[in-house]
Amino acid sequence: MSSASKPDYPPLALLSDDRLVALHSAIRDWQLTHGSLIKIGNWDDEDNIRARPIGTSIFPTLFPRSRFEEARQLQKDYNELYAAVAEDDTWLAEVLRDMLVSDPFAKALWSVHLKAKEAGYIQPLTMGIFRSDYMLHQQPVSAIDPSPGLAIKQVEFNTMSCAGGTHASIVNTMHHHLTATGLYTTPPTPPNPIHPSALPTTSTISNLVFALATAHAAYGPPKTALATATAILMPVQPFNINICDERPLEYGLWARAPPIPCHRVDFPTDFLARTTRAETGELLFYPPHSTQPVEVSVAYMRAGYDAGEHDEEGMEARVRIETSRAIKCPSVLGQLAGFKKVQQALAGAGVLERFLLSGNKGRVERIRGTFAPMYPLDETEVGLWARGQARRIETAGRYVLKPSLEGGGHNVYRGDIPEFLERAPEAEWRNWVLMEMIEPPKLRNVLLSAVGVHEGGVVSELGIFGTCIWKKRKGGGAEIVENKQAGWSFKTKADSVDEMSVVKGYGCFDTPCLVEDLL
Amino acid sequence: MSSASKPDYPPLALLSDDRLVALHSAIRDWQLTHGSLIKIGNWDDEDNIRARPIGTSIFPTLFPRSRFEEARQLQKDYNELYAAVAEDDTWLAEVLRDMLVSDPFAKALWSVHLKAKEAGYIQPLTMGIFRSDYMLHQQPVSAIDPSPGLAIKQVEFNTMSCAGGTHASIVNTMHHHLTATGLYTTPPTPPNPIHPSALPTTSTISNLVFALATAHAAYGPPKTALATATAILMPVQPFNINICDERPLEYGLWARAPPIPCHRVDFPTDFLARTTRAETGELLFYPPHSTQPVEVSVAYMRAGYDAGEHDEEGMEARVRIETSRAIKCPSVLGQLAGFKKVQQALAGAGVLERFLLSGNKGRVERIRGTFAPMYPLDETEVGLWARGQARRIETAGRYVLKPSLEGGGHNVYRGDIPEFLERAPEAEWRNWVLMEMIEPPKLRNVLLSAVGVHEGGVVSELGIFGTCIWKKRKGGGAEIVENKQAGWSFKTKADSVDEMSVVKGYGCFDTPCLVEDLL
Repeated sequence: MSSASKPDYPPLALLSDDRLVALHSAIRDWQLTHGSLIKIGNWDDEDNIRARPIGTSIFPTLFPRSRFEEARQLQKDYNELYAAVAEDDTWLAEVLRDMLVSDPFAKALWSVHLKAKEAGYIQPLTMGIFRSDYMLHQQPVSAIDPSPGLAIKQVEFNTMSCAGGTHASIVNTMHHHLTATGLYTTPPTPPNPIHPSALPTTSTISNLVFALATAHAAYGPPKTALATATAILMPVQPFNINICDERPLEYGLWARAPPIPCHRVDFPTDFLARTTRAETGELLFYPPHSTQPVEVSVAYMRAGYDAGEHDEEGMEARVRIETSRAIKCPSVLGQLAGFKKVQQALAGAGVLERFLLSGNKGRVERIRGTFAPMYPLDETEVGLWARGQARRIETAGRYVLKPSLEGGGHNVYRGDIPEFLERAPEAEWRNWVLMEMIEPPKLRNVLLSAVGVHEGGVVSELGIFGTCIWKKRKGGGAEIVENKQAGWSFKTKADSVDEMSVVKGYGCFDTPCLVEDLL
Repeated sequence: MSSASKPDYPPLALLSDDRLVALHSAIRDWQLTHGSLIKIGNWDDEDNIRARPIGTSIFPTLFPRSRFEEARQLQKDYNELYAAVAEDDTWLAEVLRDMLVSDPFAKALWSVHLKAKEAGYIQPLTMGIFRSDYMLHQQPVSAIDPSPGLAIKQVEFNTMSCAGGTHASIVNTMHHHLTATGLYTTPPTPPNPIHPSALPTTSTISNLVFALATAHAAYGPPKTALATATAILMPVQPFNINICDERPLEYGLWARAPPIPCHRVDFPTDFLARTTRAETGELLFYPPHSTQPVEVSVAYMRAGYDAGEHDEEGMEARVRIETSRAIKCPSVLGQLAGFKKVQQALAGAGVLERFLLSGNKGRVERIRGTFAPMYPLDETEVGLWARGQARRIETAGRYVLKPSLEGGGHNVYRGDIPEFLERAPEAEWRNWVLMEMIEPPKLRNVLLSAVGVHEGGVVSELGIFGTCIWKKRKGGGAEIVENKQAGWSFKTKADSVDEMSVVKGYGCFDTPCLVEDLL
């Protein structure tokens, strides 16, 4: 098997000082003029607000076209799968059983669910804005696999506060603009893969706006006489540095004809002060400019994804949302479905078949094909075997240890795993999942980020957005009302760095440069 | 006469802490996401690029609708006037005579013109992107004047590198967005003048792009075999902090179908390195990505407006442009037409009639009605009288002393004038123009800028953009090819500050809130 490697990319002619200086300046100015920024500054003093460009790749990074299309085509099945999971609290309770005892965050969210269940869920509709993240993985050539050697493997499936849709769209437009201006143009030979037809486009912003507008419409007119209008409410984190990813969704809603009101509110303190729950269950929001409340149609969560946000106030806020008539994007069960532990449990025998009832066996196989081998660290047979793998320095190098919670960060990599487990109480091991490291192809690019310029080996992550609205079935399960693939984000980091976080400055937004063959 | 003053604006309900905090945050985030920014940071290190929001008003500032319409309607006549001035080098030589001896900048520009004239101008077309700036002036009520007491008076007429068109458009859209979201909504009484129909819109960006595209088309196909394509070239200042005002014009040109190539180049060093003048006069530009030159259709000057830029290299660059076949936006004569001294000379008896040949007497009167009284400081009878006014502390308070050059800044105000003249050599007095201070109405607003929050008295300046393409007539004069009013900018500052500079942080972009009556 030849190692996937493209030492002749980016084309040499593009790496001259002259060209890089011109690209550097064109990219920075595009970012300043298009809100491709991270907010910084003194939060006590809005007069001192500043911004810096978010990380971007100077060139699009190579990616096989067939794998890109595969990831897009999988998304609607993934949406359906996670909608079904989010409606199956019996199964979730079973899968998360250990965590519901030992992990305070899972426990907190579960208690919110139980309260809402006890009160009786009064809104049959739920919404999901999902993002399924993949990396390319070099696997042995197989006579059966049509794309020898390169597969997409799912890194994680995000169900809560999925970010990056706006940034991805802006950087994508930027790479297209740079292509049009000739800044990627090279002499006719050697061939240069960067041309407009190789760069896919994404309309993530308008897709997410459309989905939120659809949910808002599905809610219908106000149900109480206390309000004369409905609005989408976006609980957000205070001191938010990633404002540029959120605000354009709001603007897109207001810009529709007729406008869809969308208000943001800091979670949880301001949320508690500015909302009430009507006796009949409607969530009422009092905007700063009105003594008249609006009735919340959709609670679009861009906060509440960190354990630390769930103190007494945070819990009260979550309960108020969950027990209300508002459509939740997502519900707490939808949020719990994004925990790593669920991703691992879905790989178990017969589990996909449990949730993907309709449809053919093909789609189960296609989804399963994107799973990287993953093991629990519990006391089952396979868990004990995995503990052995993780604790031995000779074998640990093939793995990454991930917390069972959803979201990025906090991972422990390869050689660091044995020592980490040594220090952690054995009772907590079950809160971690052991995952085989994905082995991406060796590719090169030049990255611009807050940590400086990186020219060299890179690794990319393709995120596919999906939007979904479903209805709780009387007898259990989810009836799909809307289901769409909603665009993509593409992030690239130096191969020497383990973390992909764009906000921390390691990851860079990027556009795939689609090629027929990477090997 | 009652003093124009609206102490009940902005409405009290909008000045609560709660509302101001919400507006503050909404404004800052809009600015970050829409490129309403000033670029700052370490210029040697593009990785450390930062940006801060440009100054904006929190509320639209009141402005009489009739005066707003009057300013817009005057613009096409003003365009025609300045096109005619820019084609009359005999008259300009007469008006600028003293300066051509004593002012190095005027002298330098004039020598560029003489060289081009000697070589023979080979491009009959010239372009102007103009901006005429006005302030409201309280004058005695007159039975004849339909708007008792408030007139617009021209502060200056800008012919070179007119900025602010992009910023104005973005802040205008922002004020409309804030109106739509309800952040300016108040209880039904007292009446609140802020509503969508009171806020005019402006499409300055697309208007300027359209004008540049028209000039580009008028140039036609390449004239030399050395180039296969034409492009607009934008000479810019290095280390430009106002990038957000320029780049969107470029993007707008590239985004047209078919795209109009627009390249920027630092003036003068990179300009000299990357351009040549073909033997037949075409200006050829070598982009960083190509060994093949493009032929410059329009040289759109966003540099070359400061005296300091005209060292040996700067002069060589200006001569190369002026002697080339490229359409100049503007020509050096067009630039000289923007000198304050010209504005003052146009107020002389019979001068407007000299240039506005066609058309009725009405338009001459309308233009003259916008002139604030202005006096030379030379040795003519009126000049000697003006010297007396300027040197006495008792009378100087009614005046502002402006350099005869075009552009803002460097003004000497009121009580500072006598001492300033005392120190300046008498021979240089003729390089200044004495202008009666405009006495604007007392209005209030809240401003957000780099120098902090200002809540109190404010003064606004309305800039009307005009675009014009004209052809040199064989026998002299300008034949108008295109003539448009091209949108507006509106800037507001604290009334305690004399300077309007937005880049320095005093001035704030704003939207007029049009009212029928300000008195």
